[in-house]
Amino acid sequence: MIDQNRGPLQGVKVVDLTTIVSGPVATMMLADQGADVIKVEPLGGEQLRQQGTPQSVGMTGIFLSCNRNKRSLCLDLKTKEGLDAIRRLIKTADIFVQNFRPGAADRLGVGEKVVREIKNDIIYVSISGFGEKGPYSGQRVYDPVIQALSGLTDIQADAETGVPRMIRTIIPDKTTSVTAAQAITAALYFREKTKKGQHVRLAMLDTMIAYLWPEAMSVLSFVGSEKDPKTGSLGLDLVFKTKDRYITAGAISDSEWQGMCRVFGREELITDQRFCTAKARTLHRQERLQMMKEEISKWDSTTLLDRFRQEGVPSAPILDRKEILDDPQIKANNIFEIYEGGHLGKVRQPRPAARFDISPSSIRDLAPILGQHTDDVLAEVGYSSEDIQVLEDKKIIWRPKNK
Amino acid sequence: MIDQNRGPLQGVKVVDLTTIVSGPVATMMLADQGADVIKVEPLGGEQLRQQGTPQSVGMTGIFLSCNRNKRSLCLDLKTKEGLDAIRRLIKTADIFVQNFRPGAADRLGVGEKVVREIKNDIIYVSISGFGEKGPYSGQRVYDPVIQALSGLTDIQADAETGVPRMIRTIIPDKTTSVTAAQAITAALYFREKTKKGQHVRLAMLDTMIAYLWPEAMSVLSFVGSEKDPKTGSLGLDLVFKTKDRYITAGAISDSEWQGMCRVFGREELITDQRFCTAKARTLHRQERLQMMKEEISKWDSTTLLDRFRQEGVPSAPILDRKEILDDPQIKANNIFEIYEGGHLGKVRQPRPAARFDISPSSIRDLAPILGQHTDDVLAEVGYSSEDIQVLEDKKIIWRPKNK
Repeated sequence: MIDQNRGPLQGVKVVDLTTIVSGPVATMMLADQGADVIKVEPLGGEQLRQQGTPQSVGMTGIFLSCNRNKRSLCLDLKTKEGLDAIRRLIKTADIFVQNFRPGAADRLGVGEKVVREIKNDIIYVSISGFGEKGPYSGQRVYDPVIQALSGLTDIQADAETGVPRMIRTIIPDKTTSVTAAQAITAALYFREKTKKGQHVRLAMLDTMIAYLWPEAMSVLSFVGSEKDPKTGSLGLDLVFKTKDRYITAGAISDSEWQGMCRVFGREELITDQRFCTAKARTLHRQERLQMMKEEISKWDSTTLLDRFRQEGVPSAPILDRKEILDDPQIKANNIFEIYEGGHLGKVRQPRPAARFDISPSSIRDLAPILGQHTDDVLAEVGYSSEDIQVLEDKKIIWRPKNK
Repeated sequence: MIDQNRGPLQGVKVVDLTTIVSGPVATMMLADQGADVIKVEPLGGEQLRQQGTPQSVGMTGIFLSCNRNKRSLCLDLKTKEGLDAIRRLIKTADIFVQNFRPGAADRLGVGEKVVREIKNDIIYVSISGFGEKGPYSGQRVYDPVIQALSGLTDIQADAETGVPRMIRTIIPDKTTSVTAAQAITAALYFREKTKKGQHVRLAMLDTMIAYLWPEAMSVLSFVGSEKDPKTGSLGLDLVFKTKDRYITAGAISDSEWQGMCRVFGREELITDQRFCTAKARTLHRQERLQMMKEEISKWDSTTLLDRFRQEGVPSAPILDRKEILDDPQIKANNIFEIYEGGHLGKVRQPRPAARFDISPSSIRDLAPILGQHTDDVLAEVGYSSEDIQVLEDKKIIWRPKNK
């Protein structure tokens, strides 16, 4: 039976020991698609709960937005009874995910060998920063370090001074999340076909190089005739100021260029030798951008963007993040959903991007409070209320008081 | 039988009508994982073949790096016979992917309804820039437009002037690729369980907002008490100049901070009230960065990075893209593979990031030259050599002369 309120991964059970962002956003994608993701947290809660200012019951915007649709089991893995509980849980699971530093899962007693002895066909997933060996592998990973090593900081270097620059959002972490979610799903498909569960490994560093390569580094593809990636990179700084705000606009095809010239009332540039073909426009890029800058500065943005749209010139206002909430295209796409009724008041989340017409993804629950599902999860693997009380008395598990 | 040289998606057949990057990189991920991806190209070839300077036989670094492991079928879809051939191919496929502007697939005769009549349980995938309705939906999409609308340009805005900035790599395109590959794989898993094929839709705009949200926008989660994302964003500009090159370094935990102070010989800062806790260090961020900047400038990079590593301080050289090829960590991870023997000479590609221990992904073939597999693909769906010759004579298909 297909549950129309759950996604394509309904019926899949995930034991999730990951922390911060790379792992949690990966398992959130699986949870959004219907998987039952059990977030195993230490007493005191996963590290990300500690970052930022909580809105309520330890819930920050970032924790909420990395842990939707999951259940929280809070226990002390470093005790015999805690480890025992996690092993009983593993026996019922399809997927086990961890993003500890290499070697730490083994030391904790949840390395692949042990886990596979408990559940032979489990998909065991290891996400690391640098990989399992090499000079950096034992080091703690932060996003800037992967930006530095993967070339992302070089790509963003100041065009004039050449000084490298960081991207101000954690691209390596989040790209690893999406890549991991894809790989886990492929391993699930493979297990469905062959009954074999396997070990899936990802490093953030490897992920970023694979991700950046296709256009930002591919001039290094031909061994012996590598070109300088700096000269090959697309110049995407298409930021222009109108009278009232910044916009972006660009004209690549002939028809887009012609449309732009008509908008500016500069029809003479349509046949101008410097601009009349795509090749000529690339060659005279600086003059073209200068002309665009001058013309665009004469307009107010609404009028100009309307005219661009009429003439088929790709363009958009540059929105700040608050404005995104009210943009007509973003509204037309129903990107934001509002949830209410819980202790957090009204909560806004972007819906999962991919839309499945038979088994839609959904945000069924917000992120759990710490230990919210400790009782339920333990009961499902055979613990009685008395057993659970004993674990609580021994401070091996934690569950909220006023559940 | 599992073929150890193919990945988890072995046996899956994909008809791929996508162009440029968002679709092609998605289907390349499936191909790297073993799917048989048939790239259907018009006479003259897919648009991306036209961009950049080819190394040989129309092959550019970027085309190569977006179309590995695929087969090329070159035919004119706008003829009755061409459409007929694609329909015979669809009958044998598991997945159909297109990234035309909304409505164009229907006009071409390969909309969902028609495709599903031919193959009832096919997974039909539509990737768009803006979605299917709304003010921008009919407009051609370029990456900068999605950067502008999704808040990415705002995230990267100049910290001092507030002027928005573009990211100089096509994050929206490539993130959509990875997200699409995950969604397609989830739909495959679901079909395996339920025998139902469905329509999977993604817009680049939706993808970017879902991707950026977790940390870059999540302060907008609580309706009525939204905070300004500009103040909430992580300041990741951890770029420092040593005597000889730029590096990154950071100390978040107490032990990392203590290690850093020891490296600098500034042990007095360990107990300094301004820096002795994580909270104090956040509060005195500017002073701390200024101190780091001054201290780091006194060192040569090799000595300093060695010392940082000994003391457990996360750090790395900032590599330019050419240097990546020789970095010891990247070498230890065997990220780059070299292929030779074909008409392209030696070719370098990064291996697929996720590693599967039972069914490894692999780069079995480089990107196809235009029409390289026209014969094979048509023969597989029942065309005789004579049929194929007739199609060639009528200029409905194209195949290279010296195959």
